[in-house]
Amino acid sequence: MAGAMLFPSRRLRATPFTARVSTSGVSGYTVYNHMLLPTVFEDLQADYKHLKENVQIWDVSVERQVQLLGKDAHKLACLISARDLTNAQIGRCYYAPICDQSGAIINDPIALRLAEDKYWFSIADSDLLLWVQGIALGLDLNVEVCEPDVSPLAIQGPLAEDLMADVFGEEIRNVKFFHFKEFPFKGRMLNIARSGWSKQGGFEIYLNDTQLGTELWDAIWEKGKKYNIRAGCPNLIERIEAGLLSYGNDMNREDTPLEIGLEKYISLDSDVDFIGKQALLKQREDGIKKRLMGVVIDGSEMPPLTMPEEVLIGGKNIGFVTSAVYSPDYNGNIGFAMIEASNANADTEVSVESKTGIRKARLCEIGDFWTQVQSKN
Amino acid sequence: MAGAMLFPSRRLRATPFTARVSTSGVSGYTVYNHMLLPTVFEDLQADYKHLKENVQIWDVSVERQVQLLGKDAHKLACLISARDLTNAQIGRCYYAPICDQSGAIINDPIALRLAEDKYWFSIADSDLLLWVQGIALGLDLNVEVCEPDVSPLAIQGPLAEDLMADVFGEEIRNVKFFHFKEFPFKGRMLNIARSGWSKQGGFEIYLNDTQLGTELWDAIWEKGKKYNIRAGCPNLIERIEAGLLSYGNDMNREDTPLEIGLEKYISLDSDVDFIGKQALLKQREDGIKKRLMGVVIDGSEMPPLTMPEEVLIGGKNIGFVTSAVYSPDYNGNIGFAMIEASNANADTEVSVESKTGIRKARLCEIGDFWTQVQSKN
Repeated sequence: MAGAMLFPSRRLRATPFTARVSTSGVSGYTVYNHMLLPTVFEDLQADYKHLKENVQIWDVSVERQVQLLGKDAHKLACLISARDLTNAQIGRCYYAPICDQSGAIINDPIALRLAEDKYWFSIADSDLLLWVQGIALGLDLNVEVCEPDVSPLAIQGPLAEDLMADVFGEEIRNVKFFHFKEFPFKGRMLNIARSGWSKQGGFEIYLNDTQLGTELWDAIWEKGKKYNIRAGCPNLIERIEAGLLSYGNDMNREDTPLEIGLEKYISLDSDVDFIGKQALLKQREDGIKKRLMGVVIDGSEMPPLTMPEEVLIGGKNIGFVTSAVYSPDYNGNIGFAMIEASNANADTEVSVESKTGIRKARLCEIGDFWTQVQSKN
Repeated sequence: MAGAMLFPSRRLRATPFTARVSTSGVSGYTVYNHMLLPTVFEDLQADYKHLKENVQIWDVSVERQVQLLGKDAHKLACLISARDLTNAQIGRCYYAPICDQSGAIINDPIALRLAEDKYWFSIADSDLLLWVQGIALGLDLNVEVCEPDVSPLAIQGPLAEDLMADVFGEEIRNVKFFHFKEFPFKGRMLNIARSGWSKQGGFEIYLNDTQLGTELWDAIWEKGKKYNIRAGCPNLIERIEAGLLSYGNDMNREDTPLEIGLEKYISLDSDVDFIGKQALLKQREDGIKKRLMGVVIDGSEMPPLTMPEEVLIGGKNIGFVTSAVYSPDYNGNIGFAMIEASNANADTEVSVESKTGIRKARLCEIGDFWTQVQSKN
């Protein structure tokens, strides 16, 4: 399917920024939450190089919000989140994996607490809205759960803070990582968080009025010219280097947070009773059977994966690659692989049965790419 | 976005038939239920012409199954379905819109009753699984809800019955429309229904083992050669002619079944109490504010829609087009449009603000295209 055309339809929702994205040289899309997400502009490597040195504007409207509002909003948030939100503070963001009763991951959103009785869950690619609404209905909770007209626009890259200060004022510099605050724009108040799906630094602007999409884009673009701004998108190379996992690629409903290395984001030892807790406690006691690892794969530049590729030791399958790409700064192919626990050790020599033949490879800890790339730069 | 490339990833799931689809000349995909769905092979019109005269094999694995199994499966099926399933018979298919409490459509699946305690809902493009699981959890029902390894393969076209008889035996001819029955294949029993997303007649084979995908495809392909078989897919032209509505395009969570013309498929006057019933009863009493209509649009061939296009009377907006395409057999552009109720009358003259300029158009009843195309042929 590499090189396939994406056939247009209304079902693949446009965003408040689609008009600008489509005239900014986008060359590839994916579909995420029934919506268009750009994946490439010039090419993966050119986009990546620019992102690491300048500033980019990203249409990440696909990060839809599941809004919980009302008397039972906090209770419901604590029930669905494997991260303990009991003491969640207004103005803070929390990476909050959501599990089903078996501990399997349904989504891995960022939770934002907007008020005592109001949350947004800024979601990955699954209809978390339906899960939360179904539970609220079944439990007859006093909460309104909806997808509001909110579309995040990310400003990412080392020059992001300077640009944002030019647009929204110096106060933006005081917003700490994973904090958010309201800033005015054209008579509206927009929540802006210091966050984003890269390790280059930056912000996410939660636009709350589709009609203002083009104006917001243009205002940032205009001020961004002096910072060499370009339209961009989450970059496959940069996010793998950074150890950022993608729901649907590196984890899905076959997996639990323990198998993905998300222990520190879930609250098995707190008093909160969330959906999936019992199953996860049991898994922790029994031990996991598989674990997500980093993998470095020898040979020439690998094309983006379309299917999991087998990982072997001595011809025996021990797992599969979930994402992989060639990193220029790492000077090699890097990716993630789900590996049976008994073989999930750093420095283990393996082979990968890729579309381009069998390649030598070795396992490493997730996030090690980033350390190594940084130490080179 | 017309002409955009679809960027590959594991998150866009391959199907049991992807290997065969990709070597059968597919030229366009969409993403549906996080999975690849072919949309075009040769071109829309060539695919359409072939479908109407021959037989095609369609990978519709994207019609994922939500399986309800257990003591409370029937109770849960009746609770979520706006169609009365109280007396649903084993071996029958039911078009069953699913609504939320406000009566808005969440999905419009086909329900198959497999046993007293077992249902499949063969779904449109939303994670109905999460809704059903959330409700079952909230109500603490005794039912297991999952997505089984089941991938439908459709055989569609006027020669479908002859081909299926060659592959599965003459008994298949006795399967009536919207009935299903088990047939053996390579030591497995496969449910086969007389159904499919075209008006050309045919069957859907519910393959229940991913590993058998290529063998099933090849067995049908081999026997299909004498019927001039081709790989195909749901065809935009044929489905609009036929009045087949697409979830996400012609209806979504902004709409209720009453607004879409689905009254006959929902059970407001039965005793069953389903989710959304009270809201729909109220809407029926108050009257609907908008209604989905057919629309015939003048001028040259329209490109496929990417966004809803405005429908106007005397310069005033009265609604929007949800899907539209040029039909060779109709010799005109046909589509669907959501129109405010006061103007939702057949033969109303309107204009459409399309990407290619303002065009004259007129409204008609849904399904009228089909009658008119048939009367011409």
